[in-house]
Amino acid sequence: MGVLAPVEELRDGAEALGPILRLTARDMAGVNDIILEKARSDVDLIPELARHLIDSGGKRMRPMLTLASAKLCGYEGNGHVKLAASVEFMHTATLLHDDVVDESDLRRGKVTARLVWGNQASVLVGDFLLGQSFKMMVEVGSLGALRILSNAASVIAEGEVMQLGTAKNTRTTEDEYIAVIKAKTAALFSAAAEIGAVIAERPQAEQAALRDYGMNLGLAFQLIDDALDYSGEQAKIGKSVGDDFREGKVTLPVVLCYRRGNAEERAFWDRTIAGGEVADNDLDIAIAQMEKHHAIRETLERAAHYGQLARASLSLFAETPAKIALNGAVDFCVSRAY
Amino acid sequence: MGVLAPVEELRDGAEALGPILRLTARDMAGVNDIILEKARSDVDLIPELARHLIDSGGKRMRPMLTLASAKLCGYEGNGHVKLAASVEFMHTATLLHDDVVDESDLRRGKVTARLVWGNQASVLVGDFLLGQSFKMMVEVGSLGALRILSNAASVIAEGEVMQLGTAKNTRTTEDEYIAVIKAKTAALFSAAAEIGAVIAERPQAEQAALRDYGMNLGLAFQLIDDALDYSGEQAKIGKSVGDDFREGKVTLPVVLCYRRGNAEERAFWDRTIAGGEVADNDLDIAIAQMEKHHAIRETLERAAHYGQLARASLSLFAETPAKIALNGAVDFCVSRAY
Repeated sequence: MGVLAPVEELRDGAEALGPILRLTARDMAGVNDIILEKARSDVDLIPELARHLIDSGGKRMRPMLTLASAKLCGYEGNGHVKLAASVEFMHTATLLHDDVVDESDLRRGKVTARLVWGNQASVLVGDFLLGQSFKMMVEVGSLGALRILSNAASVIAEGEVMQLGTAKNTRTTEDEYIAVIKAKTAALFSAAAEIGAVIAERPQAEQAALRDYGMNLGLAFQLIDDALDYSGEQAKIGKSVGDDFREGKVTLPVVLCYRRGNAEERAFWDRTIAGGEVADNDLDIAIAQMEKHHAIRETLERAAHYGQLARASLSLFAETPAKIALNGAVDFCVSRAY
Repeated sequence: MGVLAPVEELRDGAEALGPILRLTARDMAGVNDIILEKARSDVDLIPELARHLIDSGGKRMRPMLTLASAKLCGYEGNGHVKLAASVEFMHTATLLHDDVVDESDLRRGKVTARLVWGNQASVLVGDFLLGQSFKMMVEVGSLGALRILSNAASVIAEGEVMQLGTAKNTRTTEDEYIAVIKAKTAALFSAAAEIGAVIAERPQAEQAALRDYGMNLGLAFQLIDDALDYSGEQAKIGKSVGDDFREGKVTLPVVLCYRRGNAEERAFWDRTIAGGEVADNDLDIAIAQMEKHHAIRETLERAAHYGQLARASLSLFAETPAKIALNGAVDFCVSRAY
């Protein structure tokens, strides 16, 4: 698996996140306080389950994007912190529903909420967090941000429904795959970045620039995630290598392999991904085919391409610490894989 | 089952709905157009599933409340139609998720979406409709209405989670039961009525009056629904008599019976509702106990009480056709059972 890099490079990747972590540290503390406060409820199950999710960590990339982009745009109010928290709640709600839909047992290396509290509670607490997310947006009072985030909520759900259609379907094209990840992942990155400019009341061009930045970053992020599923280490992605494979998810590495494969190789994907018959050594066979067809390498190259586009989107902004931080977030996302 | 009334009275009940149906007929046509338009998506599954829900009918009480209360408040704009559609979408989204949570096979006498398209699609299309609901609210642009409806979304989900806790729990108190139905049902009735006054920019007192009207109407509505589950005809409630019983739902008739029962009777509820062991003739035994303890009659009396409160809430408004229509909606809800 030649895509794994030596430890020094990994460290470089993590360091790329340093500027945005430092830039948003104080505001992120505020985001965390709001998250804890808004996950409260007299119905005990809700804070219990929410606590599980909050403790599961994750890097909180999306709210950091909102905070950093508000800073990039010179925003001086307080609304960005609450908007960032509402972005994280929307994300958390979709994770809860995803785990139910995918019947997942692990998320970021921890057992999923649905295994502990059941599918019913996961669906309903997801609904609660989405409601709280909108309540916070309304408290901030920016109709522009509300428009962008409510649209994102619809688009994300649309993307998830689309993904149901591509699951186990080895005929999925690269275009269809990109449409799915654009909707299910990149739309929220895009909204998270754009609302920073909206709340700062910056001109359309800057709003569009941050929207594009987030969209391209989100595409890169998901491509890397999908590549790591066949090549990473569990510690790096918070799930087991091969999860997508076992769940019959048709991600880009599979699309590329299937397109380039001979009859025998296609029969392998039809049996495993489409048919759901996965034997013990099938993951090794899958990875070997990906090596042969350069499927992981090219997935990573596409991610690097979208990363370039994300950086280019910021060209109209001056070189400030906030811009360095946002570019660093791109470097981090793309370098996770190397 | 003495609670069932002769046919003439049933007809009276349906007639009570006449004024609000006539008052809102034109606007409801607009609501239906918007619902069809906003259920569109390039992802085929979404309009298909949404169409199933739309065709399943239901009386669309909640959007009618928004329209009638906007008329009561002399509103002359167009925003109430879109707000009414967003109320219906929020309701539809919760129905989709409810059916998944309750593992229901029938809804309003039709097979549920989850049986046709699966739980996964039902969860995700519910999320999509909720997203569309918020998008529409944002288009109307009333932060007041947004505040009320986003709060309702959280409260409904909280009520559903609360209901998970009371399910199969025969120790549930009447207070706990009322707290559940207030959150899961009455909160949306209340929000639907209140936003009519909010969008018309009426004084706080009128907003509060319509909020109380909707809350009390919603409580009456759910109490009747829960009584009908042990006494109605399937055609009237769109589900089979005894559904709640078989699902182990602890509704007021059960709470009253359990509280008043002797040791043997309590053992019956513990075996059936709590233990989930339901034999063929157990529903008859349950109904006989409810007769003995006047559980249905008193549930209906409580509904009538909340109906009175709903009517009383409107006392500060002049006797206009809109007020007659809203009072008629109360009569209809309460008289469904007689």
